[in-house]
Amino acid sequence: MSAAPRCDQTEAWAALKGHFVAHGRDFDVRDAFARDPGRFAALGVQAPLVYADLSKNLVDTATVHFLLDLARECRLEERRDAMLAGAPVNVTEGRPVLHTALRAPRGQGAHSDDVHGVLDALLGYAEGVRDVARSGFTDIVNIGIGGSDLGPQMVVPALDAYVHRGLRFHFVSNVDGHDISAVLRGLDARSTLFIVASKTFTTQETMANAMAARAWFDAEMARLGAAAGPAGHARHFVGVTTNLKAAAEFGITTTFGFWDWVGGRYSLWSAIGLPIAIAIGSDNFRALLAGAHAMDRHFAEAPLAQNLPVLLGLIDVWYRNFHAFTSRSVAPYHQGLKRLPAYLQQLEMESNGKRVDLEGVTLPFGTSPVVWGEPGTNGQHAYFQMLHQGTDVIPVEFIAVRTPTHGLADQHRKLLANCLAQSQALMLGKSSDAAAAERAPTASTTIDRDVLARHRTFPGNRPSTTLVLDTLTPQALGALIAMYEHRVFTSGALWGINSFDQWGVELGKALCSELLPRLASGDTSGLDASTAGLLKMLAT
Amino acid sequence: MSAAPRCDQTEAWAALKGHFVAHGRDFDVRDAFARDPGRFAALGVQAPLVYADLSKNLVDTATVHFLLDLARECRLEERRDAMLAGAPVNVTEGRPVLHTALRAPRGQGAHSDDVHGVLDALLGYAEGVRDVARSGFTDIVNIGIGGSDLGPQMVVPALDAYVHRGLRFHFVSNVDGHDISAVLRGLDARSTLFIVASKTFTTQETMANAMAARAWFDAEMARLGAAAGPAGHARHFVGVTTNLKAAAEFGITTTFGFWDWVGGRYSLWSAIGLPIAIAIGSDNFRALLAGAHAMDRHFAEAPLAQNLPVLLGLIDVWYRNFHAFTSRSVAPYHQGLKRLPAYLQQLEMESNGKRVDLEGVTLPFGTSPVVWGEPGTNGQHAYFQMLHQGTDVIPVEFIAVRTPTHGLADQHRKLLANCLAQSQALMLGKSSDAAAAERAPTASTTIDRDVLARHRTFPGNRPSTTLVLDTLTPQALGALIAMYEHRVFTSGALWGINSFDQWGVELGKALCSELLPRLASGDTSGLDASTAGLLKMLAT
Repeated sequence: MSAAPRCDQTEAWAALKGHFVAHGRDFDVRDAFARDPGRFAALGVQAPLVYADLSKNLVDTATVHFLLDLARECRLEERRDAMLAGAPVNVTEGRPVLHTALRAPRGQGAHSDDVHGVLDALLGYAEGVRDVARSGFTDIVNIGIGGSDLGPQMVVPALDAYVHRGLRFHFVSNVDGHDISAVLRGLDARSTLFIVASKTFTTQETMANAMAARAWFDAEMARLGAAAGPAGHARHFVGVTTNLKAAAEFGITTTFGFWDWVGGRYSLWSAIGLPIAIAIGSDNFRALLAGAHAMDRHFAEAPLAQNLPVLLGLIDVWYRNFHAFTSRSVAPYHQGLKRLPAYLQQLEMESNGKRVDLEGVTLPFGTSPVVWGEPGTNGQHAYFQMLHQGTDVIPVEFIAVRTPTHGLADQHRKLLANCLAQSQALMLGKSSDAAAAERAPTASTTIDRDVLARHRTFPGNRPSTTLVLDTLTPQALGALIAMYEHRVFTSGALWGINSFDQWGVELGKALCSELLPRLASGDTSGLDASTAGLLKMLAT
Repeated sequence: MSAAPRCDQTEAWAALKGHFVAHGRDFDVRDAFARDPGRFAALGVQAPLVYADLSKNLVDTATVHFLLDLARECRLEERRDAMLAGAPVNVTEGRPVLHTALRAPRGQGAHSDDVHGVLDALLGYAEGVRDVARSGFTDIVNIGIGGSDLGPQMVVPALDAYVHRGLRFHFVSNVDGHDISAVLRGLDARSTLFIVASKTFTTQETMANAMAARAWFDAEMARLGAAAGPAGHARHFVGVTTNLKAAAEFGITTTFGFWDWVGGRYSLWSAIGLPIAIAIGSDNFRALLAGAHAMDRHFAEAPLAQNLPVLLGLIDVWYRNFHAFTSRSVAPYHQGLKRLPAYLQQLEMESNGKRVDLEGVTLPFGTSPVVWGEPGTNGQHAYFQMLHQGTDVIPVEFIAVRTPTHGLADQHRKLLANCLAQSQALMLGKSSDAAAAERAPTASTTIDRDVLARHRTFPGNRPSTTLVLDTLTPQALGALIAMYEHRVFTSGALWGINSFDQWGVELGKALCSELLPRLASGDTSGLDASTAGLLKMLAT
């Protein structure tokens, strides 16, 4: 493993540099379409449940050819197989990385008995909660942060069409008391179930919120003259944790565990998915897993040249390290995917926001870009101005879903027309001559015609990828998320980094512990002048 | 006006270049604190209701001095005064830009009679809706997009402590039918008020959603055996628009207007703020305006060296054009400000995402960065890994609020300790020696000690600004938003661009109109191969 070269130490990297200077820097995708009538077909990839049109990117088949050489020279397949086989690829923590095992069918994959044992129990419990006439629950509050929050928080609205209509879902993550206060205000304690999700049962935010929830629960039950106490806690609080002792001390008797080979940002497939399972039920939860598994097999088995996560990861490297693009905008044209950008921020930026390679050597090139975005069409009325006419080129990733789960066919057609029009506009642009030939009804009547035309010019040649799903089913969403996971693996492997640790969160945690008592005492001794000054302002 | 030089055509720019090479590129903020015990005081600014600690930025007083020279040479004050006086600074559309007039006290500012006439009527109507015993409304649905959505959608949760507890607020923007379907599902037509917000009453998304809402309303009222018809429409739909005729044809009889000198992204202070006024009431809405007005006066009157929006805008230019930072992360440590990043994306990226100057000349430098973020502490468990240990430097903007509006004092102290610890960690970093001296409980037991230490090293010297509010009152929020508006004006003025147009949204709209009928007919003639191929897949 450690002998596999880092991307910049390969011959393919040198070849890509030459290719970039000769054909990459000034590549015009409009010319490429004109030259090659087969471009759309050549740069389209059908993976399980996800189709990708890569043809509006600043690549041609030669670029892809060089990038595939790079993948081979970096022994990407060997690294992938090592991960899938359970080798300790998280080298700094000495752990395997086996989220793929969480979605392998029974009897397949590592730890199958453990995985399916917990899964069966989890889904049994979820079905019990979903039987609302018997369970009496109407509101589910998930208390967790980071990986224990973003997955369920993203998936539940995405699969809204499959969500039990008798249940409402709430997500509390921030240690800021405004978060939980706003959620609790509308609830009836007698019909509320709290899920406390923390692997260690020590996460600062989650424990603070869990204790606030329990105190509220006790006070409300007393106010309502209902029985609470240990039996109430046991019924209204469930734990997703491996720390059974701490959970028991809290008053939780029902827990579901997971394993140290499941990273937080890869954990929605584990018991962390409990809110999802309650929302969509066991069959749909199994379909979500099956979709992810289908993508796992594609990633494991498809030739690199037809392997969607691999191709996307390679283009990410091309954009980041040759074109020097520093961010990527994600534009899901589906309101249910409104939290996908936040989910991907964790998945990609926590995984690949690293500056040293596996051996700890400082990297001479950029790694994770900033990933950001809002659902389309909303973004069009906000920051798309900058995507079209700003000074920086920002690749955009459009996600289109062919069939909606509502009956407003006319609105869906408008949505899709907008999605296609945006990628088309980014690519085609508009010349100043074309702009000059048009009337602009809102333009100043006194401005010089040529000046106005230059304001209304679009450079074009701005790259995008369009991903197409047929319907946003549990299966399709599972495949889509797994695709992103493997794409992040691909770029991380080429960059030679550990995509599975997160040492960068340590320092802030340690300093927080030091500052916390000072906020009560007002003691600023030994602090830098800025932190001391702010602390004096904020101490109470 | 047009004679004011663009930033890169000034002597100050040349001086800044020299200063950057000599003192900027290798500036270390830790050394700067060690050298200058007065640094915190010198780089702190108290503006109305907002304090800013600029001292953790990569600037010293010399940098600020050069930047102030730049502002003077670009005649920033003259440009500011021209905007405030109602000169047609939106030159491409030949319009003045007078959102400041919307918050000027009665009898002051341009168009005072018009502004206060509409405001009085708006607040009278809002108070009527808030009298829920009489009005019968429980749910308010705002239908609007872009500037007719993001302001209210951001402010209502931010001022949650002031929101009428008998009313629920919903925001529908996306043309995607999944958006409005999910909102309508939970509502009772008899107690729902729809606000249709579109200046022209022709915005594609808003009209589609308004028609879907009206169809649902009619069907629901019929199902419930309640009276609907023209009287129902007149009571349950209100318009924020200047197109009275189209509104009347829709069935709306109550409308509130605004003016062509109010840009969409500067419009929450106008009738577009109706959902806010209903939520928080007229006194609080007037306080929001008063806070913004206080910041307007600060911007208009404070010397540049003590002018907060100006200083922030100057540092933005320093980072964008000298340090070449391409994005800025916004981290509000207040869950109520969860939509502030999305709001700022429109405000900043639509205003300054431009590539030509006022004369239409292509700019040789970068303009608007990408603005992005999630509330703290959530971001810490997602992308903060990259902020601390990624390869790119990304300035972070922390927002801390001293006094919460809930009673969970312990959680609030934890929130503030986290906020301070993050900016401290970004600045201080951790050396590999310090990392080597610590135990890392989760580390691999077999990894080389020095290699591990390098994984656990933080470079530090990563810049941040901390903004401090005493309490998130309507007044403080008004001041904060106005501060951002004027900061965007400042960088836009220095860059020599028109911050008030948005020609970049035109092309996508035009292409969408062309594609829409093709999605029904399947006609792909004349389209590029990618758009044609995708259209074939998506046509129905």
